[in-house]
This record gives sequence, C-alpha cells and structure tokens, in this order.
Amino acid sequence: MRFLHTADWHIGKKLHGYDLLEDQAYILEQILTIAKTEKVDAIVIAGDLYDRSVPSEEGVRLLNQTIAAMNLTAEIPLLAISGNHDSATRLATGAPWFAQSNFHLHTRLDQAFKPVVMENTAFFLLPYFEPVDARIYFENSSIRSIQEAMPLVIKKMKEQFDPKYQHVLVSHFFVSGSSRTDSETKVEVGGLDGINGSLLEDFDYVALGHLHNRNALNLPNARYSGSPLKYSLSEKNQKKGVWLVETTGQLNLQFIELEPLREMQELQGTFAHFLNPETYQQLNRERYFSFLLEDRSIIPNMMNQLRKVYPRVLQVERLYGRENSQQLAVKKLKEQTPIELTEEFFTTIVQSKPTKRQQKWIEQSFHQLIKKGGDGDAS
Amino acid sequence: MRFLHTADWHIGKKLHGYDLLEDQAYILEQILTIAKTEKVDAIVIAGDLYDRSVPSEEGVRLLNQTIAAMNLTAEIPLLAISGNHDSATRLATGAPWFAQSNFHLHTRLDQAFKPVVMENTAFFLLPYFEPVDARIYFENSSIRSIQEAMPLVIKKMKEQFDPKYQHVLVSHFFVSGSSRTDSETKVEVGGLDGINGSLLEDFDYVALGHLHNRNALNLPNARYSGSPLKYSLSEKNQKKGVWLVETTGQLNLQFIELEPLREMQELQGTFAHFLNPETYQQLNRERYFSFLLEDRSIIPNMMNQLRKVYPRVLQVERLYGRENSQQLAVKKLKEQTPIELTEEFFTTIVQSKPTKRQQKWIEQSFHQLIKKGGDGDAS
Repeated sequence: MRFLHTADWHIGKKLHGYDLLEDQAYILEQILTIAKTEKVDAIVIAGDLYDRSVPSEEGVRLLNQTIAAMNLTAEIPLLAISGNHDSATRLATGAPWFAQSNFHLHTRLDQAFKPVVMENTAFFLLPYFEPVDARIYFENSSIRSIQEAMPLVIKKMKEQFDPKYQHVLVSHFFVSGSSRTDSETKVEVGGLDGINGSLLEDFDYVALGHLHNRNALNLPNARYSGSPLKYSLSEKNQKKGVWLVETTGQLNLQFIELEPLREMQELQGTFAHFLNPETYQQLNRERYFSFLLEDRSIIPNMMNQLRKVYPRVLQVERLYGRENSQQLAVKKLKEQTPIELTEEFFTTIVQSKPTKRQQKWIEQSFHQLIKKGGDGDAS
Repeated sequence: MRFLHTADWHIGKKLHGYDLLEDQAYILEQILTIAKTEKVDAIVIAGDLYDRSVPSEEGVRLLNQTIAAMNLTAEIPLLAISGNHDSATRLATGAPWFAQSNFHLHTRLDQAFKPVVMENTAFFLLPYFEPVDARIYFENSSIRSIQEAMPLVIKKMKEQFDPKYQHVLVSHFFVSGSSRTDSETKVEVGGLDGINGSLLEDFDYVALGHLHNRNALNLPNARYSGSPLKYSLSEKNQKKGVWLVETTGQLNLQFIELEPLREMQELQGTFAHFLNPETYQQLNRERYFSFLLEDRSIIPNMMNQLRKVYPRVLQVERLYGRENSQQLAVKKLKEQTPIELTEEFFTTIVQSKPTKRQQKWIEQSFHQLIKKGGDGDAS
C-alpha cells in the first residue's frame, strides 16, 4: 500500500488578513499532481480540511472541486477525517455517497472502529472527538479527557487487528512531546489533550494531523504531515509538503516538498532600502513579506508606503528599540498561552497561585470556550 | 412514470420564534412513507430545501438524514433543484457523488439543459437562477430579468425535446397570475420575476416550487406543490401535501394530504374561557395557536399566562378595538410590500408619484437587497 499523507489544509484561512484561497487552490492542485505522478493507491487527509466550522461559499467551492478532482476525475481513493476546526456535521454532507467511490470520510467516533481495508492495509479513521463523545460511546461517565479516552479507543481498535493486514491509524490530536507553532490553537496543544506516544506503537503507521510542523513528533511509526502551506510567520523556515508512505514490507517514508504560489520571506534593512527600485526589482514582490527595519526614526505612513511596493506585508518589526521594557512585556504576553495569562492574572489579584482544582477549572473553561468559538476567528 | 412532487421544505425555518425542526422531521418522514406506499419511481423536490443559505448544524443534519433515508436506504431516485433560499454552492456539496445513485441535484443553470431521463420521461431540472447567470450562460448582456431569460431557457430545452419521451420541467419561480401567502418573500413574488404561464405549455408537466399554496396556480399541466407545513398564519386554512404525478398516458394528478405533528388552530373567545381547564382539557394544547380575544379590558401578563397553558402561541389579536385608526394603519402597513411602502413614502415626501424609471430603480434595489440578505433572517 502506497499513499500520500496530508492534513491541515485549513481551507478559507486568512493570513494576517490576506485571503489564501488562491494559494490553497494552487497547493491542492500540486498534491493531486504528486498523487498522480507517484501513482499512489490513496490520499490520506488527517483532519482540518476547513479552517472554520462555517466556511465561506468560496471555501466550500474549493473543497468540493478538490475532492471531486481527486476522487471522481482522477479516481484516487480518499481516506479522510474531520479535525477540530471542521464542523463534523457539516463536513459529513455527502459522506454516505462518497463511500460508493472509495472516498471514506469519517466524522463520528463510532466510525473509527470499522476499519477501511484497502489491499494489505486496514485504515482506522479516527476523527477529532470530544470527551463527551467517548463517554456516550463507551457508556462510561468517568471519561473526562481525551487522555482518558484514548487507551479505550486504541484497545478497541487492537481487538480488530488481523495479522494478515498492516494497520494504519489516521488521527487528529496532540501527541505529548510534540513541538508546536503559532498557527495552532495554543490551549489545545498546551498539554490538555496530549496523548502518550507509546499508545500508538502497535500501528504500522500513524498519519497525524493537528500540528503544522512535519517534524513536530519523532516516533519511528508516526508523523504529522504538517500543513501544506505556511500558516504563520513562525512557520517561515519549515519545509511544507506531504509524506509518501509505503506500508508494504518495511515502512518507508519519503517527504515530498510542495512549492507555494507565493513564498514567505523575511527581510532586514532600512526603509529607504526596501523602497529603492534596485532592491525590489530583484525581489518577487508578490510574496508574503516580513520586514525587520534598521531605522530608528519615526516613518510616517510606513505601512501604506510599503504596501504600494509589496502588496502582501505580513509584519513590520524594528530591529532597534525592540527590546524596550514595554515591548518586552507585550512580547512576553504574546508568548503566553491563555491559560498561563489567566493564572498570572489570578496570582496578581489573589496574591497566591491557583490551586490544582482551580487550575483545572481554568483549563476546562478555555477548552469549552475554544470549542464554542469555532465559528469565530481562525486559530 | 409515477413520482411525488414536493418543494419548499425550508428546513430550519422558525415560525414566530418556534423551532420547527421536529415538525419538519415528522413531515419529511411522512413524505418518505407515502413514496414507499405509492411505490413511486422518484421524488421531485422543486427547491428551497433549506430556509437560509447558511443553515444551522441541526438543519444540515436533518436534510442529510432525510436524503440518505430516501435515496440510499429506500433506494428512491431523487430529482432536486436549489431554490432562492438555498445557497446553490453549499447545497451542491456531494452532488457529483449523489448522481451515482440516481439522486440528481441541479444547482447551476447550465445543468438545466442536460435532461435526466428516467423510463419514459425526460426531466429538465432548472434551479433558481439570477439574470446574471443567464447573461453569462447565453453570452447575452442584454438579459436584465428572469422574464427576459426564460424564453431563451425554454427554447433551449425544447430543442432537445424527443417525441418518444414525456417532458417534465422542475423549476422554482413565480408564474404570473399565481396567488401568494405571507411566508414567501413579497418583493420577489410581487411581479418582478413573474413568468408567463404560456411559456410552459409544451411540457407534459411542470413541477413548481416557490409559492406555498398548492392552489396558487391553475394551469392544466403545471402545479405548485406548496410547502409540506404551514409556514405562516395566512396559510392556516390551506391543505398541505404532495402531488402524486403519473405521466404515462394522460397526465394524472392526485393530491395526497400530510398530517402535521402539530396543527395550526385559530380560536375565538374570552381570556377567562381560554384559561378555563374545561376549555383547554378538550384541546390539543401542543398545537400552534392564534387567539382572537373577545375581552375589552387590559389583561396584565397576558402572553405569559396563555403560554403557561398553551406552549405555542403564535399570535393574540383583539376582536374589539381592532379596527381603530392606529391599528388599521399598522395593518395596512403590514399588508403592503416593501416596494409599495417605498413608493408611498416617496409620494408623501416628493408630493408626486415615482416615474416608471424610478419605480424600476426601487424594484431593482429591493431585489438586490433581498438577494444579499439571504444569510439574514428567514423570509
């Protein structure tokens, strides 16, 4: 069995206000081209197909076109799950019909236990789920977290293991020990739902989604594919691509890089330098830029002037004066998770740290808030 | 060919604030039962499956369950189009896969010209479209209205007529001369997009959606199915149901009534009478009620007291004092279309009636407004 592993398309995501739909259409087309060139048996999509639970019409159109091109026109089987950014209910539209042409889209926990068998491989497609889903499914009201649910989930899958197959898990979670980037929702990857990697060791391969860095996890048999595009400035140095996975015989993993329509580029220099035609005529001005300015003086109308030359400016930072106390404080705030911020605020007001119980309340509240906030801004 | 003709499900619609999902699930189940009992060859759904372009998750779930039960479980072919309340793009999700199991869902004008042939009948599925769609499709920039577009649409369909088939048109428009009810958007049915019924005469049957009254139009070969539920108090005396259509041999139409989960009922009497257990114990209090009060005095906390006994009160009106001048004025305002109101306002301010050209501007503005407002409140 030879398949592509991708995830975290986040169709409809905006980057510092810039609409990425064109970049996304371009990169999804590229994934399809790779799938055809490599003559894969399937494409695995490990969740977060959309960036939000109610995507725009343009986003819906792009996903519909993409899956039709892959599954109906190119006749490539698709194995997909919903992620935490998707509305499982909305994404499920059409799914019972998709299965007729080997497009298996699982959006409910109970579906994870009916493996999809293709050639020598059994795929367990485990969508993102909430503790409440596990409580209902296992009829066990004591399950309070994903960490508590996962051993039961994996055990139930293993009961169906059959030595004549390879076993692949497709899942969308934070595995403990992974490193993260800014474009994932901090509170969710900050430990609350970390799953112990040892739980995954009996699978021949685990195709993960959720983290945007393909190197976020280092296990012999498990990988995050990462997002196909850079969805945050913190990802500017990451290589983006898809895993080509071969499960027949020994596991073979090959990372195939993707070429974005517009790269992300960080530049350092003076404002005058950036506005000098000799500078910008040598650059691909269509890229997404982050500028590190060496100037010390105030520059009136700075952003507008830059954007006249560079239509996609993500950020402008100052090299000098960056570390003054106010900016340091802001920087520190920006690096803290919402939970850390709340705990620090609590400590300042109450003059003592929150108790374990109070910490748990804070964590749970944020978790619920983020869940409810799914329709709001991308995170 | 023997099929059911239904339309205007408006899944997700609220009636005076009351969620109708349960009533809708009940009535859609009943349509399926009729389809099975009558052993129909197909179910035709003539648009407005949803009440709004972005339906709730619960609405999405109900439509997904309904179409799966009809098409996959009961294996009944479905022939459906998008209406003015649906987002064509969102509704189209899954459509290319649906066609594999004889579920033909057309959401674009160009699809109307590829008839779906079943047994002895060719179905032309014409979704709701805008003049701009016709301008692009026919490459004719002079098309400014649906009236101007329809002769071209029908002509192109007729070019494909084949004497060995019966020809059925499925469409979602206002046909001139039809009568309307409150639950349709007034500005759209108020003449702006009225289509001349004579255009339709060469079809063996025209299955229409848009108007909620099955008697809205009287042509020998064309019917509105009406909505399956009463979606406005003005529809309280209408019979709701589906048409059983037989196209083999002479056209045969039979109206099969639906039994709602909760009827709509208008009662006249005194407040004391309605709160008397002897009255309400003889009533099905779960129904949707409209009260016509004979009292003349002020009744404090009236609505709350009524709702304690009758959980679904749509409206309370006074029999006496109803016709005082202020109420008359309000009633008159309520009965006017937005276009009429604007023209009256114009006349009051300018002291002369709007010219034909100004009238056209007003109409066009409202038409665009309503189109844009598709994501807003139900109408």
